[in-house]
Amino acid sequence: MARDIEFTIRIDLPNGTRIGPGKVMLLETIRQTGSISAAARTTGISYRKAWLLIEELNNSLKQPVVKTNSGGAKRGGAEITKYGKEVIAIYRSIEDRSQREAGGGLRKLLRMFRPRVS
Amino acid sequence: MARDIEFTIRIDLPNGTRIGPGKVMLLETIRQTGSISAAARTTGISYRKAWLLIEELNNSLKQPVVKTNSGGAKRGGAEITKYGKEVIAIYRSIEDRSQREAGGGLRKLLRMFRPRVS
Repeated sequence: MARDIEFTIRIDLPNGTRIGPGKVMLLETIRQTGSISAAARTTGISYRKAWLLIEELNNSLKQPVVKTNSGGAKRGGAEITKYGKEVIAIYRSIEDRSQREAGGGLRKLLRMFRPRVS
Repeated sequence: MARDIEFTIRIDLPNGTRIGPGKVMLLETIRQTGSISAAARTTGISYRKAWLLIEELNNSLKQPVVKTNSGGAKRGGAEITKYGKEVIAIYRSIEDRSQREAGGGLRKLLRMFRPRVS
């Protein structure tokens, strides 16, 4: 299959924060690369944008998700905290369970759409 | 509770069409109001935007979801087709099942966030 159906979830918290695939992928890429600027490049957003998203998450959670080693201006290393890893794990687990549950409905929906839009 | 946690799903079809809460709510409001312009007002988008979203859906599905009675310019009545009702029903059923499945994870996640962001 050239391109499969994709199913994503978004969570709007009562405090106004939204968690979706973009922020979670950013966190996962920081975990892999150990750097906000590398993660920004990889996920196709600006360094400034990545920094603001991380700051938003850090302010919104009871504990920070990312710790930077030398601050924003110097673009030093960054690492995901244990708390951040837990947020990622819970999000991915909700997503996995939802995707499994959605399977039958998604196949039904897929059959109603044209394979290509002319 | 003033404002609860909200969980939404988005489906990206292989043909490039995305189905999420916005388009589905637009269809449901057209079903209720019998009018694209009333539905646009209710959902807070422009008539033009609503019209383009419907056109995108009609082109992307094997059968149209909305039929208009007198064309775009005259802003006449509009109604959801049987096919459109089926799309809505399948989407809402996927959402319901996913939400039920997500419940435990959402509660865990909720506890990790501050009630308010200062």
